Amino acid sequence: MAKKRVAIMTGGGDCPGLNAVIYGAVRVGIARYGWEVLGVEDATRGLIDLAYAFPHGNQWLTLESVRPILSRGGTILGTSNRSDPFNFVVRNADGTEGTIDVSDRVVENFKKLDLSALISIGGDGSMRIAKLLIDKGIPIVGVPKTIDNDLASTDQTFGFDTAVQIATEALDRVRDTAESHDRVMIVEVMGRDAGFIALHAGIAGGADAILIPEIPYRLEPIAETVKARRAAGQTYSVIVVAEGAKPKDGQASVGEHKAGAMPRLMGAGMRVADGLGPMIAAELRVTVLGHIQRGGSPSNYDRVLAVRYGQAAAELVERGEFGRMVALRGGEITSVAIAEASAANKRVDPRGQLVSTARAIGVTFGDE
Amino acid sequence: MAKKRVAIMTGGGDCPGLNAVIYGAVRVGIARYGWEVLGVEDATRGLIDLAYAFPHGNQWLTLESVRPILSRGGTILGTSNRSDPFNFVVRNADGTEGTIDVSDRVVENFKKLDLSALISIGGDGSMRIAKLLIDKGIPIVGVPKTIDNDLASTDQTFGFDTAVQIATEALDRVRDTAESHDRVMIVEVMGRDAGFIALHAGIAGGADAILIPEIPYRLEPIAETVKARRAAGQTYSVIVVAEGAKPKDGQASVGEHKAGAMPRLMGAGMRVADGLGPMIAAELRVTVLGHIQRGGSPSNYDRVLAVRYGQAAAELVERGEFGRMVALRGGEITSVAIAEASAANKRVDPRGQLVSTARAIGVTFGDE
Amino acid sequence: MAKKRVAIMTGGGDCPGLNAVIYGAVRVGIARYGWEVLGVEDATRGLIDLAYAFPHGNQWLTLESVRPILSRGGTILGTSNRSDPFNFVVRNADGTEGTIDVSDRVVENFKKLDLSALISIGGDGSMRIAKLLIDKGIPIVGVPKTIDNDLASTDQTFGFDTAVQIATEALDRVRDTAESHDRVMIVEVMGRDAGFIALHAGIAGGADAILIPEIPYRLEPIAETVKARRAAGQTYSVIVVAEGAKPKDGQASVGEHKAGAMPRLMGAGMRVADGLGPMIAAELRVTVLGHIQRGGSPSNYDRVLAVRYGQAAAELVERGEFGRMVALRGGEITSVAIAEASAANKRVDPRGQLVSTARAIGVTFGDE
Amino acid sequence: MAKKRVAIMTGGGDCPGLNAVIYGAVRVGIARYGWEVLGVEDATRGLIDLAYAFPHGNQWLTLESVRPILSRGGTILGTSNRSDPFNFVVRNADGTEGTIDVSDRVVENFKKLDLSALISIGGDGSMRIAKLLIDKGIPIVGVPKTIDNDLASTDQTFGFDTAVQIATEALDRVRDTAESHDRVMIVEVMGRDAGFIALHAGIAGGADAILIPEIPYRLEPIAETVKARRAAGQTYSVIVVAEGAKPKDGQASVGEHKAGAMPRLMGAGMRVADGLGPMIAAELRVTVLGHIQRGGSPSNYDRVLAVRYGQAAAELVERGEFGRMVALRGGEITSVAIAEASAANKRVDPRGQLVSTARAIGVTFGDE
Repeated sequence: MAKKRVAIMTGGGDCPGLNAVIYGAVRVGIARYGWEVLGVEDATRGLIDLAYAFPHGNQWLTLESVRPILSRGGTILGTSNRSDPFNFVVRNADGTEGTIDVSDRVVENFKKLDLSALISIGGDGSMRIAKLLIDKGIPIVGVPKTIDNDLASTDQTFGFDTAVQIATEALDRVRDTAESHDRVMIVEVMGRDAGFIALHAGIAGGADAILIPEIPYRLEPIAETVKARRAAGQTYSVIVVAEGAKPKDGQASVGEHKAGAMPRLMGAGMRVADGLGPMIAAELRVTVLGHIQRGGSPSNYDRVLAVRYGQAAAELVERGEFGRMVALRGGEITSVAIAEASAANKRVDPRGQLVSTARAIGVTFGDE
Repeated sequence: MAKKRVAIMTGGGDCPGLNAVIYGAVRVGIARYGWEVLGVEDATRGLIDLAYAFPHGNQWLTLESVRPILSRGGTILGTSNRSDPFNFVVRNADGTEGTIDVSDRVVENFKKLDLSALISIGGDGSMRIAKLLIDKGIPIVGVPKTIDNDLASTDQTFGFDTAVQIATEALDRVRDTAESHDRVMIVEVMGRDAGFIALHAGIAGGADAILIPEIPYRLEPIAETVKARRAAGQTYSVIVVAEGAKPKDGQASVGEHKAGAMPRLMGAGMRVADGLGPMIAAELRVTVLGHIQRGGSPSNYDRVLAVRYGQAAAELVERGEFGRMVALRGGEITSVAIAEASAANKRVDPRGQLVSTARAIGVTFGDE
Repeated sequence: MAKKRVAIMTGGGDCPGLNAVIYGAVRVGIARYGWEVLGVEDATRGLIDLAYAFPHGNQWLTLESVRPILSRGGTILGTSNRSDPFNFVVRNADGTEGTIDVSDRVVENFKKLDLSALISIGGDGSMRIAKLLIDKGIPIVGVPKTIDNDLASTDQTFGFDTAVQIATEALDRVRDTAESHDRVMIVEVMGRDAGFIALHAGIAGGADAILIPEIPYRLEPIAETVKARRAAGQTYSVIVVAEGAKPKDGQASVGEHKAGAMPRLMGAGMRVADGLGPMIAAELRVTVLGHIQRGGSPSNYDRVLAVRYGQAAAELVERGEFGRMVALRGGEITSVAIAEASAANKRVDPRGQLVSTARAIGVTFGDE
Repeated sequence: MAKKRVAIMTGGGDCPGLNAVIYGAVRVGIARYGWEVLGVEDATRGLIDLAYAFPHGNQWLTLESVRPILSRGGTILGTSNRSDPFNFVVRNADGTEGTIDVSDRVVENFKKLDLSALISIGGDGSMRIAKLLIDKGIPIVGVPKTIDNDLASTDQTFGFDTAVQIATEALDRVRDTAESHDRVMIVEVMGRDAGFIALHAGIAGGADAILIPEIPYRLEPIAETVKARRAAGQTYSVIVVAEGAKPKDGQASVGEHKAGAMPRLMGAGMRVADGLGPMIAAELRVTVLGHIQRGGSPSNYDRVLAVRYGQAAAELVERGEFGRMVALRGGEITSVAIAEASAANKRVDPRGQLVSTARAIGVTFGDE
């Protein structure tokens, strides 16, 4: 009898633990259920065009080929932001770009490969596409991925702990050097819409101010904190800024006034530096962590969570529970409907325990 | 008006995050409540003898003095296994050791120092002593500490994540070198009674066998796993052994037969090596991680948890809720009665999800 | 007989290993020679004004007080860029700033404290001041400090290895995430005048382009490299940019054209991104490592070198060899005249072995 | 015209940086010289039997296949201690093992594969075999590998810096936990014949005693050091023991008296613990780092050195300079005759600068 064939893919931005999910799903799928597992290249890209081979092309995964990937960052399957089959980007005859619907090709190729199911690991965008493909008859199981931990349907997402750890270690280092000087250090961390990374790293890394999207800031309380610290003999301050941190209405930062001045390059951390500089008599230094938060070997926590997700996804496939997404609830792995899953986002609760903890140990959020 | 004076102490074995608890409690106590906070040296030792000054003696903690400790391993207050005031070890005239009850001295010194409350950070032993001191009228709030995460009353304890991370990184390294050779690597990790560290690190570090106290092992299935892997072209295997891992009844390891042969030095990892060696035709190497798992900078997770514990302990003191121990339940900090807290231990559930995950990805526990 | 009193200070920018030099000098000075050692606060600041106590003030160092600092970043003595006694910054009556010569006060305080010698750890500026103070009769021994490793008189300076390690780990992480995407990652590292950090980290971190001050770059060869890699199926590239990297004459980067557009904030990495963006059809991401390269625990190499420097400085003082600076030559510690020492800077040799190695493995410097 | 074919192999024990040497040689060989490069499996094993395919078999290396290996521990080519073609282990008819000379097969297969040269990366054993194969007409270039840094012909070997770093971090961690307790921590590190790792890590990690093969120790001075520290209020001590550390003649450690008591398992660290325990009134804890020192991502220093070695090996091949081994001398890469290279070993000089430094900062070697 022919073996059951299951495909697996990764979509969206990079996230430590993607490979560990693949590892978990492939080991359980092959060793326990006797599947053949196809790794699809660059999200759905490898299903849109079976001849797609850039840089690798689809690959049959084995127990041995996934062995070394557990501890590695990135994803061996690649990922893509330009592989939505319902809005596939093509170049028109006149050189402009347009989008077409190539989802039928995905369905066709899925059948041609004799696949029984697809495990899709990805974020909001990937889950939205997954729902549409399910409607077209492809049996899909989802694994949630968001480094920002901003998903309501699961207690925690893999990759977040690693990102916070990298940011915390960066804060430890700038604190070392800040302590030796009279200086304000600004560290910009990830978090466009949710401030979980900034909040956790800020507490763990001993920040004096934490600026997050959920709590619009004014510069005055931050300047006051810096000055009060100096008056108390602490000559330096450390400020963590989420990339989505925003000033309160009516208070535009200096940087924003400069119309057209490379908005792409002028990040939230630099805007704070630009505005705060004239208000305090201290040197300012900005560090932008950027993508180093998305790379590197996943932490033990993220690996264990990712392996459990991979195992659970394989089990959902084996039991035929399609249209479901794995989730962590109260320490146990369970599943939710994909539709429900991507509906609700999680945000830092400005009145929650953790913000409260930060305030209690003397951190300002710039909203006082 | 005189300020409220609160004492804080750390007891039992070392654990990453002890300093972060002190940091959290002191910052909240001083900045929010205006306390004076006395750091007591070497658990109750500093209260048994106020002149005790070895190596440091008691110290008044300040916002500035706790600033740098957040990220540091160890405890600035020291700790001791020989400071139980109800069984205080003294040397008799004839040179032998005996124990006496000096708890009244603790009560007396507590009053002499004009203390209002005591925050006791420690494990089982410390909490047992705390209960007895509460009975003698000292208002105590407890903070649980066990690197093994074996406490039923809280979802997680600080230090555990760091210990697992260190063990996981060690496994990554031995796997690197094992892959290049035909070799079986044994890594002994902490866990006398509970195998959580071995289980988590084993999954995260890609171990082929995980031996824990909760699941007595036989050597045969382990030898079979090693041989099966070789037959499949995987020339190496990695075995994680908790220090409390035990062979099944009736199967004593070779090491145990050697009566008196330095039982203190012959750890669980070496016993497995000793027994497994003759059964397989491969080189064996043993690494004993020992105390490097207890030291070093705590992970972001442990720091945040520890700071929250410290804050919660300060709040319990301020609200006068004595006899309580802080706890984490479902992601929120709460408290439980100290009496209840230390009553129930947590063990790895041999039929729980995580053991199941390990088996599903092909790990043996030696009980098949 | 009164003990010999020796002062020690740290000046200039932060550098991993400063504390290890202090540790080495103090341990040898106290344990071997029986000195008393005074730690002077904020470079010469603590000698300009003995009452200066911000944040700490001068401190007598002991074997025990230096024990824990070996592994710590920063400097327990603080440092300052505004403590040149020959050009001491003061505020005039009209609110403007001016400078006065307070070097006589330093000499006076040196005598008042009954000091026999001064160990000055610092960079160019500190050594220049040291020479002037020597001329005024203060017996000084120098320890060179430059994280950029740009000093001709010593084979290597402490702190450099740690900075390169941090940059290398950052490159590892962005490479992880770059590999999963079609993307160009730019990492800006330290190096205003010398490109050693960029060169070493670039080779160690597998960069595709390395831009350093010693080799002015054009954007075209870099864009060609990115495109050639894509054509060969490697969809990403990693570029390391020293903060002092400069485009070749006649080719101003886009960023530089925008007169007045926050030159302080627009770093070399962002300028490259700005110019390269329009030339290639790929996403660009910039990471600015900034001060995280200056903080954190020094590497084993930097610690051993720093301890040796500290020991050698103490020995020079004991032997009365003032006006000398310790140096590493061919693996052995020796000394050079301070005057000679700071005269010659070291730069990356564009025709040297290491640049050659980088080119041989396919790295572009943008000058082809 | 057919491309030049060059083989590359790795032999002996594992060492961080092996992959980086392969990376350097392959990139230069392919990109600069246009070679085809064959990776030979398990040292000469893959040349003894071309059908050998356990676990991988020989593989043609490409620019892309070596891309990800620069930062990885281990060796993608495998290595073996049982592949000496002049003493190849075979199983006799009666089940016993014997050795035969299969070197002619290596020569034959070398020709069959149309190879022009062989790059052999390895230690003493590998270089001895290389010399014999050169005598049989195989053109070989050598790359030295010894994690212990005990080779006289080169200033430093790759892997050593990484091993010292891992040992130093372990010392940092046990020091953290030792400081909180009244305790003596023993850490056993690599070094059977040479104590460089123990010496460097001991200084960098703040050890109180360093025991190395080059300086036979007595237990009394070590016990005195521990007691003197206690008397001075420092309640803990850290001892680094190289695995080859030996007691002075006439003083056998307790452990050695126990005839037959698992000499394989009773390491140097445990022997010291066993003997020292009765002499001091303090808890003792032993950590055996073992193979975690050989694994993990190589440090920036080791990567750069390894890449330079790889490049230099490729250049020697291209220039036809066979029988040479690459070496680092005074910061520059050069080469020496293989014969000369493996002749002279390097040992810690008991009267050298570094031992002197250690003594000056108060470290005991147990020989006072």
